[in-house]
Amino acid sequence: MTDFSYLAALLATVTFSITGVLAARATRMDLFGVVVVGVVTAVGGGTVRDIILDVPVFWIADTSYLHAAIAAAIAGFVLQDLISKRYQWLLYLDALGVALFATLAVVKTLSLGLDYAHAAVMGVITGIGGGIVRDLLTARPTLIMSRDLYATPILLGVGAQMLLLANTDLDTAVATLLGGVIVFSGRAAAIRFHLQMPDFLLLGGREQ
Amino acid sequence: MTDFSYLAALLATVTFSITGVLAARATRMDLFGVVVVGVVTAVGGGTVRDIILDVPVFWIADTSYLHAAIAAAIAGFVLQDLISKRYQWLLYLDALGVALFATLAVVKTLSLGLDYAHAAVMGVITGIGGGIVRDLLTARPTLIMSRDLYATPILLGVGAQMLLLANTDLDTAVATLLGGVIVFSGRAAAIRFHLQMPDFLLLGGREQ
Amino acid sequence: MTDFSYLAALLATVTFSITGVLAARATRMDLFGVVVVGVVTAVGGGTVRDIILDVPVFWIADTSYLHAAIAAAIAGFVLQDLISKRYQWLLYLDALGVALFATLAVVKTLSLGLDYAHAAVMGVITGIGGGIVRDLLTARPTLIMSRDLYATPILLGVGAQMLLLANTDLDTAVATLLGGVIVFSGRAAAIRFHLQMPDFLLLGGREQ
Repeated sequence: MTDFSYLAALLATVTFSITGVLAARATRMDLFGVVVVGVVTAVGGGTVRDIILDVPVFWIADTSYLHAAIAAAIAGFVLQDLISKRYQWLLYLDALGVALFATLAVVKTLSLGLDYAHAAVMGVITGIGGGIVRDLLTARPTLIMSRDLYATPILLGVGAQMLLLANTDLDTAVATLLGGVIVFSGRAAAIRFHLQMPDFLLLGGREQ
Repeated sequence: MTDFSYLAALLATVTFSITGVLAARATRMDLFGVVVVGVVTAVGGGTVRDIILDVPVFWIADTSYLHAAIAAAIAGFVLQDLISKRYQWLLYLDALGVALFATLAVVKTLSLGLDYAHAAVMGVITGIGGGIVRDLLTARPTLIMSRDLYATPILLGVGAQMLLLANTDLDTAVATLLGGVIVFSGRAAAIRFHLQMPDFLLLGGREQ
Repeated sequence: MTDFSYLAALLATVTFSITGVLAARATRMDLFGVVVVGVVTAVGGGTVRDIILDVPVFWIADTSYLHAAIAAAIAGFVLQDLISKRYQWLLYLDALGVALFATLAVVKTLSLGLDYAHAAVMGVITGIGGGIVRDLLTARPTLIMSRDLYATPILLGVGAQMLLLANTDLDTAVATLLGGVIVFSGRAAAIRFHLQMPDFLLLGGREQ
């Protein structure tokens, strides 16, 4: 599990850092500003998670995450022409980062002996925390306000992950990976097909 | 005191969670998104308080707050037609949550042996923290920017509460309740009558 | 070093608190609201730093910072006519606060045995954290989105500071002061001459 978690967390860090670069494009920020936004986006959600759980902040305990975030932001900057054509990349990369961070937060929270409600909330906060900081820093509407499904795939995925962990003999890594696949698939489908909840599950449906 | 605090904190949690639902109405968010905004609004201020005070985060130590916030957000969603007519409800519920969270934060801060300046600041941060997160998440102007009195009733109420605690034999619960009544009454009067400070206590008065 | 740090941190606190007052001018906030914004701006960055480093929050451990922030916000309010003519003051005061907070955070981070990447990140977060909270609270575009150099002078200054600390026998206070002078000078030059990075170091350069 440790190796899997470690690689997944590094991948999530890299992914989120690049979404920071992409989100900053509208602001004509310079290289150093981009690195700052990339790093804060990459480590923001996990930092909030660790502080609330009162465990050492992950990138303080292990600088690798910081190096990965910085390198990814620089790479994103250098390769901007390659990735700039497609704003959609931001959304899909965000979905991947969200899936990884959310399911890993569930594992971390449960390993501290906390309960499923805690784990679900920490999954959501960790998954979307960095992205929200990114959107606020670059003055974009936060993704949680998007009309496409956003919180729903996260809750479905971590819900499935927790059901598997509680009721089956599946290895933690496998259950976590399956949960992450559900989060990512759900969110990717929402982006691709503009999936929305049926009207009766939408706020303010009848007024607009 | 413990029972009183506990009930008051649960009531504040429920109240703030519903303000999150009301604030989210403009964004056509779905049920799960609404629950996320409700929970973050409900626990945001107290989370910041506990982290700064370096004590266990209240909803990690006791899941009841989380369950209350989730249930309140769902109830707010289901009953949206009942409460949707009146945007004013958001303001009054916010005032109630602010009054409860602010005065409870004063009690908690003083019980740790910190001083009155600390308690006043923690009262304000706890009172308005969740609401600010709510307003940022739903892209609304933060209530602290409202022209009606907002910080002033909080400071008057917690000031009165601390004067009573320091100079009288009143039970902590009674002094706290009185402080809370002052916060709520002051804020409610500000909402109802658009109370503003006299011009010489307003920034930039002469320019506009 | 201790006396130097202490005075520098108090000066940074006062400076940042006044920038909060200046930023709030557009909102016609009242005196108490202004004090809240001033205090949160003044202590915001350092609070995030201390929480991430898991050390006692500086203004909880020593109330002087709180008193300084409150007094500075009130003074800024009273003297608003004197300082209101020049919006530029906000930028230069912000630059001074950023320089002090960033270089002090480097000293604090290294003194805990963490490495240079940590120190650089903590320098940036501490330097700009309060200003970002100020800009969000008063609904202004965050300074990090400004087209003039912002993160760059911070990273150059703390980079120079860390080089001096690692490779010379300079007193910590002297190296820190030199680093701070570089941060402030760089940022002041960026404000005065609208310095920007050359095009190849700007995001999205070719599209606009």
